[in-house]
Amino acid sequence: MVAATDDRAWLTALCDVEAALARACARVGVVEPETAARITTAADGLSRSDPAELGRAAAADGNPVIPLVAALRAAVAEDAAAVHFGATSQDVLDTASMLIAYRALAGIVADLSACGESCARLARGHRDTAMAGRTLLQQAVPTTFGALAAVWGAALDRAGARLAEMRGELPVQLGGAAGTLAGLPRDVVAAFAAEVGLAEPGGVWHTDRTVVAELAGALGVAAVAIGKVATDVVVLAQTEIGEVRERAPGGSSIMAHKQNPIAAVTARAGAAQAPGLVATLLSGEHELQRAAGAWHAEWPALIGLLRAVGGGASRLDTCLAGLQVDTSAMTRNLAGLDGDAGHAGDLVDRYLDGRSP
Amino acid sequence: MVAATDDRAWLTALCDVEAALARACARVGVVEPETAARITTAADGLSRSDPAELGRAAAADGNPVIPLVAALRAAVAEDAAAVHFGATSQDVLDTASMLIAYRALAGIVADLSACGESCARLARGHRDTAMAGRTLLQQAVPTTFGALAAVWGAALDRAGARLAEMRGELPVQLGGAAGTLAGLPRDVVAAFAAEVGLAEPGGVWHTDRTVVAELAGALGVAAVAIGKVATDVVVLAQTEIGEVRERAPGGSSIMAHKQNPIAAVTARAGAAQAPGLVATLLSGEHELQRAAGAWHAEWPALIGLLRAVGGGASRLDTCLAGLQVDTSAMTRNLAGLDGDAGHAGDLVDRYLDGRSP
Amino acid sequence: MVAATDDRAWLTALCDVEAALARACARVGVVEPETAARITTAADGLSRSDPAELGRAAAADGNPVIPLVAALRAAVAEDAAAVHFGATSQDVLDTASMLIAYRALAGIVADLSACGESCARLARGHRDTAMAGRTLLQQAVPTTFGALAAVWGAALDRAGARLAEMRGELPVQLGGAAGTLAGLPRDVVAAFAAEVGLAEPGGVWHTDRTVVAELAGALGVAAVAIGKVATDVVVLAQTEIGEVRERAPGGSSIMAHKQNPIAAVTARAGAAQAPGLVATLLSGEHELQRAAGAWHAEWPALIGLLRAVGGGASRLDTCLAGLQVDTSAMTRNLAGLDGDAGHAGDLVDRYLDGRSP
Amino acid sequence: MVAATDDRAWLTALCDVEAALARACARVGVVEPETAARITTAADGLSRSDPAELGRAAAADGNPVIPLVAALRAAVAEDAAAVHFGATSQDVLDTASMLIAYRALAGIVADLSACGESCARLARGHRDTAMAGRTLLQQAVPTTFGALAAVWGAALDRAGARLAEMRGELPVQLGGAAGTLAGLPRDVVAAFAAEVGLAEPGGVWHTDRTVVAELAGALGVAAVAIGKVATDVVVLAQTEIGEVRERAPGGSSIMAHKQNPIAAVTARAGAAQAPGLVATLLSGEHELQRAAGAWHAEWPALIGLLRAVGGGASRLDTCLAGLQVDTSAMTRNLAGLDGDAGHAGDLVDRYLDGRSP
Repeated sequence: MVAATDDRAWLTALCDVEAALARACARVGVVEPETAARITTAADGLSRSDPAELGRAAAADGNPVIPLVAALRAAVAEDAAAVHFGATSQDVLDTASMLIAYRALAGIVADLSACGESCARLARGHRDTAMAGRTLLQQAVPTTFGALAAVWGAALDRAGARLAEMRGELPVQLGGAAGTLAGLPRDVVAAFAAEVGLAEPGGVWHTDRTVVAELAGALGVAAVAIGKVATDVVVLAQTEIGEVRERAPGGSSIMAHKQNPIAAVTARAGAAQAPGLVATLLSGEHELQRAAGAWHAEWPALIGLLRAVGGGASRLDTCLAGLQVDTSAMTRNLAGLDGDAGHAGDLVDRYLDGRSP
Repeated sequence: MVAATDDRAWLTALCDVEAALARACARVGVVEPETAARITTAADGLSRSDPAELGRAAAADGNPVIPLVAALRAAVAEDAAAVHFGATSQDVLDTASMLIAYRALAGIVADLSACGESCARLARGHRDTAMAGRTLLQQAVPTTFGALAAVWGAALDRAGARLAEMRGELPVQLGGAAGTLAGLPRDVVAAFAAEVGLAEPGGVWHTDRTVVAELAGALGVAAVAIGKVATDVVVLAQTEIGEVRERAPGGSSIMAHKQNPIAAVTARAGAAQAPGLVATLLSGEHELQRAAGAWHAEWPALIGLLRAVGGGASRLDTCLAGLQVDTSAMTRNLAGLDGDAGHAGDLVDRYLDGRSP
Repeated sequence: MVAATDDRAWLTALCDVEAALARACARVGVVEPETAARITTAADGLSRSDPAELGRAAAADGNPVIPLVAALRAAVAEDAAAVHFGATSQDVLDTASMLIAYRALAGIVADLSACGESCARLARGHRDTAMAGRTLLQQAVPTTFGALAAVWGAALDRAGARLAEMRGELPVQLGGAAGTLAGLPRDVVAAFAAEVGLAEPGGVWHTDRTVVAELAGALGVAAVAIGKVATDVVVLAQTEIGEVRERAPGGSSIMAHKQNPIAAVTARAGAAQAPGLVATLLSGEHELQRAAGAWHAEWPALIGLLRAVGGGASRLDTCLAGLQVDTSAMTRNLAGLDGDAGHAGDLVDRYLDGRSP
Repeated sequence: MVAATDDRAWLTALCDVEAALARACARVGVVEPETAARITTAADGLSRSDPAELGRAAAADGNPVIPLVAALRAAVAEDAAAVHFGATSQDVLDTASMLIAYRALAGIVADLSACGESCARLARGHRDTAMAGRTLLQQAVPTTFGALAAVWGAALDRAGARLAEMRGELPVQLGGAAGTLAGLPRDVVAAFAAEVGLAEPGGVWHTDRTVVAELAGALGVAAVAIGKVATDVVVLAQTEIGEVRERAPGGSSIMAHKQNPIAAVTARAGAAQAPGLVATLLSGEHELQRAAGAWHAEWPALIGLLRAVGGGASRLDTCLAGLQVDTSAMTRNLAGLDGDAGHAGDLVDRYLDGRSP
């Protein structure tokens, strides 16, 4: 997940977007195809340069697109005028952000899907494995481990499905200096979307950040699902409960006997970072045609959120794929608890039925 | 909005839910219809009692359902066993929360829709009204007020549509003591949903809070849309810009000449409270079959969020419905700015086309 | 805590502040003493009127001071000019906010102090009570319950001391229309502070909200301390651990045998609401001489934060005052764990020594 | 600021801490001085290795100290037993975090101090420069630019003083496996603090995170101060107001004439990231003797917060050091506004007097 969002990934995405813009301009006839090809080649070369250098140059202007465009223009010499044609920095940076998100979400959605599969497997395998139900962390009445796994799976499936849906809707940005498409042919937006491989937006969203807010919200929902499951694993793995354990528990720098449910612990830590970052992404006031600060504040928060949720999903997949269930501990802990598990089996069946195509 | 979420509204919702549960039990044959009718009558009476009294009684047990059920049982005497049949406190409180949200969202969705209508009217009426485009709050190149209103409207429409969609999906909760429907007939959930007027959930979501998280996220997106528009009105209404003003500006306790865009200012204040409350609603870790704290922390945050976004939507409707546009100020401020408004008119048309059925 | 922050408390604080301002003006000679006395009497009467009425009137102007001043002026007729002398709405509302905080903090500081006393008692009484130390919720090596109580107490003492310190520094606000004290004698601020019973500020802080931010931060620290202790009680009270229990556990609406550590659970819920509200209070951008929204957003967040932390402190006091320690469970759970409790006793002694005067 | 908090800085701090621990153990006689010297040399060498490698190794165990200790032990061969003597991972990582904060705060405090000096210079130089006071962004009554600069300076001074104070109190962490100092001489903590150059804590704070929460709160207050000033610069630099401008404004990738107040804009963006990160740092529930996730969630939030506030302070210093004040624009905008600037000059004098020793 770090690799999908690090400085190298950003530089690559920015270069990809400038190249796609040139090709889109060629599609609609305002740039020569050969020029677009040369810009694509130059952008490809630039994407392998040192991101740290661009970072330093970016500070003075407040965004990396200004020095990137200068470098790209220098690299293509007489084709310079065709570079960044009609676009403003925000067009390129917003599109690159969506591209970063699109690429990172591939991994997150896959990890959530794998987590969902693990839950389905656990629910099926433990449909009738009785265990103590615990409310407010006090033993209450019986349930089954399958019913718990079904709750986990439902949450993860829901979160993953929404992220998959949003991934397919992530739009390019193209509006020009003040969002009017001044100096650009009207149909370049569709061509740009096709070249980048993202959706065509309904309009220019330079300062309509509901797009970013919805993505943030969906990632926050995923964090809720991840945190729920990871917390339950940590609770059930407690020494005194011992109903689950991880296949490859973590050690300690001082205690040889420790068997920490470290994948769940770190998944939980990933999820815990999400709410604050979502709040940041919901907080900005994007004034008029381009925000005077709120836009710049989005980048680290979005990267941080993708990393936190992505890291959490990946760690949870590790946790669930190897989760070991101690049914004898469940039986032992259940002793003395009156009642039965009600319709737990039906709830598992319904969950499993809802998953199948 | 306060009335839709205050203590009276909560008491009413809780009583409505207990009554609906009794009728649902009657539908599936575990309670006599006459008993359900008597419980409904008693709950109706109880809903008119003093909410403060229930609040005090709630403190000892950590939730208001325990004393409410006691009061309801006392009121129906020999029908006591049929009250709260098979349910746990969280079933009733979660369902009441969703009912509160359902009722509050009616107003919020309507206000956002009215705001959207105002934006469409402004976009249509000012399709070609040139004004200075401003990026980073510096004059950049021309745009039109219609294009800005279209951005506003697109954000508000998107946020409102999502909330309307979510409103229709808000589920009842019914799982019993540990979420297994123990002691309840399996088909009572559908009957309960029909009686309450909410959706039937896919499963028991006592500790799968992705439902609440999605609602929180959608309210957060609405806050982003509201805050964006309100901020722009505040900025454009500045003395030195003077391009818009409110029909009924606010006064000052000390300066007679002040004409504050107070509806926009207070809409902005409503929106500003949302991100932190969304973060709270995304933060809880709901352990196993019922959370030991995270669930209790949801109530004030959800109320606060509905009030903040609802208040913001209502104030923004006031602001936009009476927004006065000073086109001569726009022309004056635009003087000396080179360039044209590009495809601003097309963007307005596309926005308006996208709204019509 | 609700009573210290509800609508009645706000109305009272606002009236107290207007009265104090009149008397301060009398002290420095710009208002007749008899006039100030009549305004004080009228304000006192007004403080017993219906807060809901003022709330409705406040909506139109965006703050309650404008209608309050109108009502007070009407009540004193010929003395009207002396009411709200030289002040702006924000002077009165900010001072009332600080007064509300000052009054609410009295209870919070007292509750935290009582919690600290309970911890000291537990640490002293269980200086050498061995129990399993648990890291990542896995048994690690032995510790003592006294050492844990000392950690609890240190956190609570630190948080309480900082709040007590801040309470003594909460300032009045007085700057007039644009924060220049125009129309006011320079020495009225000190007189106003003396009359209100709050500190004299170094300057006018209409838009320097570091004052509010520091208070928010200190309340956030208190929430961290409260949440830590409450979480530990919930964990140690689990059925499978059973090392502590509350004196008056909470029941269930469906399970007669449940013994929920409900004071700890609700304390935890109080603490859980703090981070988001602190974020709101740190988020506002207060433009130039008075904020266009960020100021209005502070009120509900500050009330919410005082209630959350105050409620949490009060519930934790209940929890700790009656906490029952099951040393035999501690011994039983410890069986099989190698090692000793190191310098746990010394750490307890050091903590207790640090508390005594 | 990035350099003070990047992977290299972390590796260096971790190595510094392990070396300091060895020397502290030598001070109290449990490790040979020559051994401590060899460990120090080896740690110094290790600090120049590739941080990315350690990062990969860290993932499996959930923290980087475990592989670091292994590498250090391998490097010193027969002295291996003296490495990480009696310590747990959290001892080293918490101490390294505080060391990172200590080092990063040096720059932040210096930048805030420089900002404060700029404000004092502006306040002194413009003590009597009249300008329009603006409330809710509407012209209200006159004030002076000096009075505004005094408000800025007071906020920055207050925030900087608190951070400087906290910097001197940042403690080492040393408690061993379960926080009882088992296997360690009691007096090693003081020696460790002396070797690291941080404060000696009152106790073991593995799960008393009020230390971290206070630091987070103080950084949040700094963000409030930074955001306030940056916002005012952005507002006053608007084309239509034009009362200030930056010495080296930022350009645009598309509009040659743009003169963006980019230092203020990016300072504002830095400040805007703080509230969400503070919320994360206040959110964790650190169970019993070591948290199962909340501790791991602190690291990225603390790094992010130091970077956001540090970046904001640095950019604001650039902004203020070169801020150009257009007094003729102030005069022009003031035209037609009745009233005088009251005691604005006195307020400036009082602010300046309060700064001098």
